[in-house]
Amino acid sequence: MPASFDPSALDDLLTRIARDAPRHFGEGNVASYIPALAEVVPDQFGIAVCDVAGRVYRAGAADTPFSIQSISKLLNLIIAIQHLDEADIWQRVGREPSGQAFNSIVQLEVERGIPRNPFINAGALLVTDLLVSRIMSIHWVMRELARRLAGNPALAFDTRVASSEMAHKARNAALAYLMKAYGNLHGEVDEVLDVYFHGCALSMSCVDVARAFAFLANRGVHPDDGSVIVTPQQNRQLNALLLTCGLYDAAGDFAWRVGLPGKSGVGGGIVAIVPGQMSLCVWSPRLDSYGNSVAGLRALETLVEGLGVAPLG
Amino acid sequence: MPASFDPSALDDLLTRIARDAPRHFGEGNVASYIPALAEVVPDQFGIAVCDVAGRVYRAGAADTPFSIQSISKLLNLIIAIQHLDEADIWQRVGREPSGQAFNSIVQLEVERGIPRNPFINAGALLVTDLLVSRIMSIHWVMRELARRLAGNPALAFDTRVASSEMAHKARNAALAYLMKAYGNLHGEVDEVLDVYFHGCALSMSCVDVARAFAFLANRGVHPDDGSVIVTPQQNRQLNALLLTCGLYDAAGDFAWRVGLPGKSGVGGGIVAIVPGQMSLCVWSPRLDSYGNSVAGLRALETLVEGLGVAPLG
Amino acid sequence: MPASFDPSALDDLLTRIARDAPRHFGEGNVASYIPALAEVVPDQFGIAVCDVAGRVYRAGAADTPFSIQSISKLLNLIIAIQHLDEADIWQRVGREPSGQAFNSIVQLEVERGIPRNPFINAGALLVTDLLVSRIMSIHWVMRELARRLAGNPALAFDTRVASSEMAHKARNAALAYLMKAYGNLHGEVDEVLDVYFHGCALSMSCVDVARAFAFLANRGVHPDDGSVIVTPQQNRQLNALLLTCGLYDAAGDFAWRVGLPGKSGVGGGIVAIVPGQMSLCVWSPRLDSYGNSVAGLRALETLVEGLGVAPLG
Amino acid sequence: MPASFDPSALDDLLTRIARDAPRHFGEGNVASYIPALAEVVPDQFGIAVCDVAGRVYRAGAADTPFSIQSISKLLNLIIAIQHLDEADIWQRVGREPSGQAFNSIVQLEVERGIPRNPFINAGALLVTDLLVSRIMSIHWVMRELARRLAGNPALAFDTRVASSEMAHKARNAALAYLMKAYGNLHGEVDEVLDVYFHGCALSMSCVDVARAFAFLANRGVHPDDGSVIVTPQQNRQLNALLLTCGLYDAAGDFAWRVGLPGKSGVGGGIVAIVPGQMSLCVWSPRLDSYGNSVAGLRALETLVEGLGVAPLG
Repeated sequence: MPASFDPSALDDLLTRIARDAPRHFGEGNVASYIPALAEVVPDQFGIAVCDVAGRVYRAGAADTPFSIQSISKLLNLIIAIQHLDEADIWQRVGREPSGQAFNSIVQLEVERGIPRNPFINAGALLVTDLLVSRIMSIHWVMRELARRLAGNPALAFDTRVASSEMAHKARNAALAYLMKAYGNLHGEVDEVLDVYFHGCALSMSCVDVARAFAFLANRGVHPDDGSVIVTPQQNRQLNALLLTCGLYDAAGDFAWRVGLPGKSGVGGGIVAIVPGQMSLCVWSPRLDSYGNSVAGLRALETLVEGLGVAPLG
Repeated sequence: MPASFDPSALDDLLTRIARDAPRHFGEGNVASYIPALAEVVPDQFGIAVCDVAGRVYRAGAADTPFSIQSISKLLNLIIAIQHLDEADIWQRVGREPSGQAFNSIVQLEVERGIPRNPFINAGALLVTDLLVSRIMSIHWVMRELARRLAGNPALAFDTRVASSEMAHKARNAALAYLMKAYGNLHGEVDEVLDVYFHGCALSMSCVDVARAFAFLANRGVHPDDGSVIVTPQQNRQLNALLLTCGLYDAAGDFAWRVGLPGKSGVGGGIVAIVPGQMSLCVWSPRLDSYGNSVAGLRALETLVEGLGVAPLG
Repeated sequence: MPASFDPSALDDLLTRIARDAPRHFGEGNVASYIPALAEVVPDQFGIAVCDVAGRVYRAGAADTPFSIQSISKLLNLIIAIQHLDEADIWQRVGREPSGQAFNSIVQLEVERGIPRNPFINAGALLVTDLLVSRIMSIHWVMRELARRLAGNPALAFDTRVASSEMAHKARNAALAYLMKAYGNLHGEVDEVLDVYFHGCALSMSCVDVARAFAFLANRGVHPDDGSVIVTPQQNRQLNALLLTCGLYDAAGDFAWRVGLPGKSGVGGGIVAIVPGQMSLCVWSPRLDSYGNSVAGLRALETLVEGLGVAPLG
Repeated sequence: MPASFDPSALDDLLTRIARDAPRHFGEGNVASYIPALAEVVPDQFGIAVCDVAGRVYRAGAADTPFSIQSISKLLNLIIAIQHLDEADIWQRVGREPSGQAFNSIVQLEVERGIPRNPFINAGALLVTDLLVSRIMSIHWVMRELARRLAGNPALAFDTRVASSEMAHKARNAALAYLMKAYGNLHGEVDEVLDVYFHGCALSMSCVDVARAFAFLANRGVHPDDGSVIVTPQQNRQLNALLLTCGLYDAAGDFAWRVGLPGKSGVGGGIVAIVPGQMSLCVWSPRLDSYGNSVAGLRALETLVEGLGVAPLG
């Protein structure tokens, strides 16, 4: 591990990044497609790092909970991998970058209801459909896994966000019904949407998210208790999928600029993994046109450069 | 570097892989779109590794030259990065996975003549157009760079392949003319195609290719002479681009199965990079439906598993 | 009016057509996407003509009721034109051929929720949304108009078909939700679908359909009672729309072969208009790959040739 | 034939239309994709009618030659129908509206090189390829047919326009090469383009065009000499194709507003057919966003309304 992991040096780096973040506070816009998200105070910033020893570093509003939104797609996929036969998953959802916006429906028709990957909306709905059909009390399972991974028993759904999502479900309903029309989604659309929206509505802070996904930097082993969350092979595969598909149609640019596996959400959070070393989480609500946090992306670039980490060398 | 780099262990691994390769000799088909490629003896296999100290390991037909085809897209991009202002490149070609076959024209119209990335045909033609307009004697420059990187002064164009490509230029001509219609390709289409096809028609062996791209595993520095081919940042960016876009619409699957930056060609060659450690090249002419070598992909999987390398860990 | 309208000659022509129809009974398949339609006895055929004096000619199973399915799209558009400000209609649905299958969703996303025309599913759902929001008791209005136009007070919804459609609503629900996501569909999706499916589930015979739409051959005036259904301009426009868009992505072929405004349904019915002269209705349940009745299309070709009618000259 | 064909009444109508045309002179833009067209004086207007007795009526700049551009697609299709086996034509080009802009390439890839219809660029290039391969001296045949149909032995190619088209051939070359890649276009691309561009570069006046296509209003018989240009069935089919496909992605709107078979060109000309009665030609260089003459379309609407002709009644 590079010298920069000297705790005080990393603290200094995070502090500097948090101090500089307001430079980007004017850029981009808060997600506006549901009222509950549109009301978020836009000019906030938090950052947290969790290393493979479980040590947490933080700066800015790192303990402020935000709506994790699409970061829940990663959580749901992990549940699916833990509970289901993988062949069942991968015959119903692909593993390729989509080259399309996260909520595009065009590709889904061309490819007859098989979503490209689990990190676009259609794919995440499909994974949720798998969970709904196979796992009892799936809401509870999702929340408990998030709590356990983050080591935070107080994590909760923001039910106001979940309700707001359901009230504005039209596009996701269109995706789900189209997959149902092709026979690929089996459950009741409204039930699938309810579970999916609850996942999106999990409230977590940067510290929560960094801790929750630190196992992805540690070959699948939770840093705190040594429990195996996924196998080393699954862990490598998840990171590969995050790298190629985690940021929708900005995945290539993120790989180019940051060079790490990552997943963003329209709540303004981004989680990234430095394999073998640490997980990173940034949060700032204003988004660029791809739905990724503007200040968050800049902070990640600075952090990666400052740490000198480069798994793609 | 893991113990597996013990030279004799690596030699054993490669020998075993080459011995097992014939199991896949019945699968897939040799590229048939030009006669010169269709005549290749299908059931051949070679493999080579070049580590960051410049040591080469090999097995099978590792010294048999083959047509590098799309691996030349990487060579051309390196020339562009070396000779041109990068901003000039990236305003005319993107850096995102295409989610489409390598020679698709649909996306090019939707996105008004800006190809998604330099590793699909349209993007490679665009990079070639940049080279043609800015670099004198570009054929010579391409061949000399390949010779120098591979340390093989005998490398040559297979002019029969280049002529055959030109005689069957229709789809690439369509891509080039469409970009010209949008004002993004500036040169004469036939001149751009001629240079592009010559790059594709470079004949290189697995050993040549592994040596030529070993610098990508070495932070941009050539292992043999210490010369800087690209900067560390450019090196990391190239690897990121290879990982997200190097295998066309099978990039996600390759990342999932192999987890390395890589580039394939319809001649049956695949080059892959283990950052910080080594470059790998496999070759076997039969292709899957995505245009990637069947036996080559399997060999890479086995090699990566055997080496225990996992940059995405 | 040509001499061929001599009643006995027309009767002879229809009789001959009905006699020859069984030649095509092996071709094509009954619509299978809902069980209630899949159960229809496939090898049936009916034909009816209604001239502008209101005289009806018939042969085969011309009085057997069938599910009018997409022919209801024409009925719904007529109600919209009668009750709404036309500008309200045409700012929310286009008037161009779609060049796509009747239930395609691709175009709807590309064109941001504005369906191409009222005769593809998305457009018909949009027209239904307009009806639902502006007209009280719209089910009743639809049925009453059908009864009045056909002069048959016994016309009824086949509620078993309507229920079966609702139970297999997925694709139409996807279309409706996507339009809702774009803000173009305003009502509740399930309510819109219920009305739409009831229209599709109207049971009418060839004689009913021919009588119902005879006004389109009579400059908008009902032959029986002289009432104005639509204005002459609206009548001409409806016929133009039927000619360019009435048979989905087989509209061009229908115009080429038959040369008349027409509308088909997956129940196997097709209605066609000879402006100034008569309306025609054929019915036979087996469909070609475009969803149009095989025997019905052949019968129409023979009928048009036998009558010597050629508005496109 | 309606009373409005009283010669002086028709003359009055045309005179009034020509007098009112300047109201639209500010709207739209002259085609600018080739310099030779961009130089045309924009604010000109001509109109001509040729009835089935061969009588010509005219107003405005009805004798000013203009570049017929895409109207040549109709001429080429007529030559193909006259000289080739029709089955040879229709297995290589479709007869359906495209729902896309005239020069779109997307559909051509999706449908593997088979253009939708002969009136979009790809389809016209394909028809030209058929002509080139089967007919000696095709330039001469095209010009002679135009001269004969128009009764004007002075008709000529504007070679400056043809050269300018060839110098800006990129998009049409892309379409042709893509069809060649799919094996559907057989000839040399540049030769096909040369013939196609010469057709586009025919200079004809409104009077020439109206006379040339009057046979389409006369069941395929030339009004002047009684010669059969096409059979009655072919004539009806051509009119059907013009109605569904003649104005690209504005075909539906043209049918709705004008209700006649028609063909437009980016030179600003539009020809329309009233089956059984007359042909119409208008010309004014400023185009709307679909590539159709703004003042021309308005004039046609007024003319059709004034004449009271309504084949779709």
